[in-house]
Amino acid sequence: MRGAPQIGVAAAHGLAVEASRLPDSGLRPGLRRAAGVLARARPTAVNLSYAVARVSRLLDEPGLAAAELRRRVRDEARAIEAEEVANSAAIARHGVALVPRGATILTICNTGALAGPGMGSALGVVFQAHLDGKTPRVYACETRPLLQGARLTTLELARARIPVTLIVDSAAASVIEKCDVVLVGADRIARNGDTANKVGTRMLAVVAHAAGRPFYVVAPSSSFDPSCPDGSHIVVEERSGEEVRAFAGCRVAPAGVTVFNPAFDVTPARLITGFITERGIIRPPFRRSIRTALRR
Amino acid sequence: MRGAPQIGVAAAHGLAVEASRLPDSGLRPGLRRAAGVLARARPTAVNLSYAVARVSRLLDEPGLAAAELRRRVRDEARAIEAEEVANSAAIARHGVALVPRGATILTICNTGALAGPGMGSALGVVFQAHLDGKTPRVYACETRPLLQGARLTTLELARARIPVTLIVDSAAASVIEKCDVVLVGADRIARNGDTANKVGTRMLAVVAHAAGRPFYVVAPSSSFDPSCPDGSHIVVEERSGEEVRAFAGCRVAPAGVTVFNPAFDVTPARLITGFITERGIIRPPFRRSIRTALRR
Repeated sequence: MRGAPQIGVAAAHGLAVEASRLPDSGLRPGLRRAAGVLARARPTAVNLSYAVARVSRLLDEPGLAAAELRRRVRDEARAIEAEEVANSAAIARHGVALVPRGATILTICNTGALAGPGMGSALGVVFQAHLDGKTPRVYACETRPLLQGARLTTLELARARIPVTLIVDSAAASVIEKCDVVLVGADRIARNGDTANKVGTRMLAVVAHAAGRPFYVVAPSSSFDPSCPDGSHIVVEERSGEEVRAFAGCRVAPAGVTVFNPAFDVTPARLITGFITERGIIRPPFRRSIRTALRR
Repeated sequence: MRGAPQIGVAAAHGLAVEASRLPDSGLRPGLRRAAGVLARARPTAVNLSYAVARVSRLLDEPGLAAAELRRRVRDEARAIEAEEVANSAAIARHGVALVPRGATILTICNTGALAGPGMGSALGVVFQAHLDGKTPRVYACETRPLLQGARLTTLELARARIPVTLIVDSAAASVIEKCDVVLVGADRIARNGDTANKVGTRMLAVVAHAAGRPFYVVAPSSSFDPSCPDGSHIVVEERSGEEVRAFAGCRVAPAGVTVFNPAFDVTPARLITGFITERGIIRPPFRRSIRTALRR
């Protein structure tokens, strides 16, 4: 399971499944335990804790009988999924206005239907541009170390018959001048606009900024973390060095070599042109515009 | 065979071997043919054509008997190798002055003893810093698609007991602020300082520039191409998409997906702090300083 909004939806449904198998007597403590385990499973994407918190709130409602609580948990999970599907469609509609006809779009990781409910986030905008007859073309970064771009994004785009060209991540600097816009997803967006997303996103933002190309973060409002003042407060998950030292079971670096393998990076807000959300486009200055957008 | 200076030395020795097996009657035409084949083998690194041109010049000398020509070809190959070994040592001595004590150095690809005669280029400076007791540390970019950083640079540094941390290329933007200097090699340097090197080098230069970190190209004068006015004239070798689509025999992208796989990129001169050569450090403005340095 991957993709920030999808992880949130999956966690909510996971709690509904857990509710269905817990006995009446252990329902509330069992759900609290499960919520804790799920919330701690991945530290970076905020959608996970957002969805778990929404379901957990039901546990504090007084006077709910076990059967009623189970139904409410299930309904909340379904509501979260339905909202994210609707968000995805609204995001795509807002985002497509920023994509010129015949645009070449640079992206990283996978942000399509395999990563989010509905059409996804950044790739959802690409799908919408394609549906609208704007004939977009995509450069897909392979997205080391786990190659979500090579494995998933190329697959989704090829199936939709959207022209896609796969590149190694570092070739982004070689193709940026052929690109009209960079679209990426998000795992957690701080109040000031600093954005955690798949490692390599910050590199793309720096490259886009240097080339004068717009760089949009595409994400539902559930990816914003109002409790997080800025990027320095975002915990970036570090994963096993074996993801880099070995490849498809084949060793590519000396066995003991030290690896720094952050799964995400944090893009400073000043490198971001805007956020494409279901509530519209959020533009700088971000502290104010994000606060306003989240309040609605 | 890889590494720009090493490729040049290998081509010169290749011509000497060819000379030793050609009959007297076919010596000159055979060597001309071999020189053409070698010169066209890789388009980007200039050291190849530099070495082949130096050996080929002997073919135009009048009055050389076959045995004498063979000896001169062999001696020229040995001279080229000896010069590059001496260059490597001189480069390391000049470069080490730019490496602070306890420095953290970011590099890409492999530029050590496996890539160049002597100690290599960029990694030669690191080795010299280590020998001088400056206790350097290195972040090595894995260098997709062929992983020369993961496979070779980590090996060379670990053997020398220099602390090295391997990262995926795109994580360069995550570590640049922990780095004091970026050191890279070169395959061809134009008269204005635009530099072709392994794909990803330009990305590092953009990232270093944005973070205010010095970015040095480390190369012998044989890597400068006086016939090339600027980067737009450099032919960047494009290699098979299979290098990106498959890995160690394992498919990682849909079989037919389009790939753009440039082996090199061109870093604009304005992103380069200086060139570390055997003749000293070349600093901006590069048009003039490169011309002056090459004249000596």
